[in-house]
Amino acid sequence: MAQMVRQLWNVPSATHPFLAARHMSVMAKVLRYGEFGEPGKVLQLQEEPVPDPKQGEVLIKTLGAPINPADINTIQGKYPVKPAFPAVGGNECVGEVLAIGGNGSGSGSLKVGDRVVPFSTGLGTWRSHAIYGANQLMKVPASIGVAEAATITVNPCTGYRMLKDFVALKPGDTVIQNGANSACGQAIIQLCRAWNVECVGIVRDRPEFAQLKDYLKGLGAAEILTEEELRTTKLFKDGIFRKPKLALNCVGGKNALELSRQLDQAGVMVTYGGMSREPVTVPTASLIFKDLRFVGFWMTRWTKENAGSVLRSEMFNELFGLIDRGALKAPAHEMIPFEDYKTAVTNALNIQGFVGKKYIFRF
Amino acid sequence: MAQMVRQLWNVPSATHPFLAARHMSVMAKVLRYGEFGEPGKVLQLQEEPVPDPKQGEVLIKTLGAPINPADINTIQGKYPVKPAFPAVGGNECVGEVLAIGGNGSGSGSLKVGDRVVPFSTGLGTWRSHAIYGANQLMKVPASIGVAEAATITVNPCTGYRMLKDFVALKPGDTVIQNGANSACGQAIIQLCRAWNVECVGIVRDRPEFAQLKDYLKGLGAAEILTEEELRTTKLFKDGIFRKPKLALNCVGGKNALELSRQLDQAGVMVTYGGMSREPVTVPTASLIFKDLRFVGFWMTRWTKENAGSVLRSEMFNELFGLIDRGALKAPAHEMIPFEDYKTAVTNALNIQGFVGKKYIFRF
Repeated sequence: MAQMVRQLWNVPSATHPFLAARHMSVMAKVLRYGEFGEPGKVLQLQEEPVPDPKQGEVLIKTLGAPINPADINTIQGKYPVKPAFPAVGGNECVGEVLAIGGNGSGSGSLKVGDRVVPFSTGLGTWRSHAIYGANQLMKVPASIGVAEAATITVNPCTGYRMLKDFVALKPGDTVIQNGANSACGQAIIQLCRAWNVECVGIVRDRPEFAQLKDYLKGLGAAEILTEEELRTTKLFKDGIFRKPKLALNCVGGKNALELSRQLDQAGVMVTYGGMSREPVTVPTASLIFKDLRFVGFWMTRWTKENAGSVLRSEMFNELFGLIDRGALKAPAHEMIPFEDYKTAVTNALNIQGFVGKKYIFRF
Repeated sequence: MAQMVRQLWNVPSATHPFLAARHMSVMAKVLRYGEFGEPGKVLQLQEEPVPDPKQGEVLIKTLGAPINPADINTIQGKYPVKPAFPAVGGNECVGEVLAIGGNGSGSGSLKVGDRVVPFSTGLGTWRSHAIYGANQLMKVPASIGVAEAATITVNPCTGYRMLKDFVALKPGDTVIQNGANSACGQAIIQLCRAWNVECVGIVRDRPEFAQLKDYLKGLGAAEILTEEELRTTKLFKDGIFRKPKLALNCVGGKNALELSRQLDQAGVMVTYGGMSREPVTVPTASLIFKDLRFVGFWMTRWTKENAGSVLRSEMFNELFGLIDRGALKAPAHEMIPFEDYKTAVTNALNIQGFVGKKYIFRF
């Protein structure tokens, strides 16, 4: 089907006056919801004809779209971003350009056959075909795998910005993070390795800890500790690693407190998640005398505030380069047929396995 | 006595070869401690002859020296700054220059009769006479009262820096602070008024709340609320005041949490004390989605890091100017004879009254 459509469309539309009519034969599958609730209940798979892209718009066929925790929370109504109903689930995907609207002007340098990712949030990516504004899409090198491209705009970008924007890290410096087995944690480990920064990761203890530790050290982690080991570690006191300048927290509660205790004078803790559902506890003395700073990071806000920024293109170029040379891989994941969405959205937050796994829809 | 000594010394020492010998007749009273413990027990009032100031040194007669909470905590051994024993208590004072060491070179522009404050910390100011390095002293305009000068380097400077260094406040912006009746809180209220910033202050409920509220509004507070009133206030929701960009916290615990809830998007909470002895609790969502930042401030560190900075002279010039035109008064205080030190240090942390009062030794 993809092959057929590509052949059909791989020519400038202006030379084919009948393409619009033919195009109507392409049906899109779309995962919609009309109210907040458990995703397995409120999502409905709908089929609908795909309209023509207009001037400045681009029709893409989706190749892969992941299920991120924030997508689930959004559908549950627990996320600060509230969509207008009916809404389409999902925030990330990679697609292939099937057609470019109008005479092709206003679509930048995009061509039919290009691989693209949307970098705006809230576009609704859980659909087999979609029409996006050309200015909402970014071309992705063809050499980049579907899983990497489909998951690049949230977790690797979050890791990248947190490592770049809060303290000035030099080679040999240490970063400490909890939830090191999360998708973002895996990206952070690989970015640290690429930049010669020591990344010490914390995970909850589990039967498969040894296996998980091997996996994460294989990605480039300098050391992996359980939460219990963190409490008594002498890695920093004994100078095995420099005291961390930066702590990345997606857990909160006691574990975040333990993380902050390892920070160097004037260190920064950046919170980007709260898996424990407990707040961050900050001892007064660590603020006043140790000069620690506690801040948060939200990729959605960064993207909004840096829409036309050169920082964004610099970031993506560096990430593409890292992926290209095998230094940044997609997080542990499982491609799952779009039709199996009920299984996927129901289990997304707790896939079994030694490392947190991410579902990616394939179409 | 002060008058006699001033007459004796109010001439350049180089023209009086016998001054050193005469000087030995001046005896200093000094409050020393040789171990950590309760100040009333470990402090001892000693008398000793005052040596000659050497080249680059200055002999001062102390006119006033306050008892700050940090002074008590230092003597208790609960403060991160640990003095070498035997140590002299106190960190702030104002003095009058009695004599300048050597030929007077290396003493900057200081002259006999000048009023000075030491701006280094840990010098030990609880003594009737002291010899300091000229480079540790700053001249204070003679027009400034003893209480104002004796208390300028800790609380007004702390308030000044916290209001200047974390967010850019414009006239009409709001600052919210707890412990608004503390010495620092009183300085913050007055600085806000001088800069046309609305200061909303929080205090614990108490029988004399109405009286305290009047007093603090008299200093310039836009509004004073009890901790209970803070929880349900609509001052910011209803737009009576702009949502605070800055929260100043010297309490911690639940009250700090309530304070942070009133902050505007991307607001900053600066912690400079922890009277409740409870940590600051930071909800994950306030970090990620509201972009709040939690930092600390310690005047001692600022002073160390900005020893020769133009920021410091700018700050003191502005503070002197405010005091001069009556816009910045000393905190509520009581001058107490140096000999009554046991009463003073024992009661320093809980003087009775509708507003926290500060003891200032007079000599």
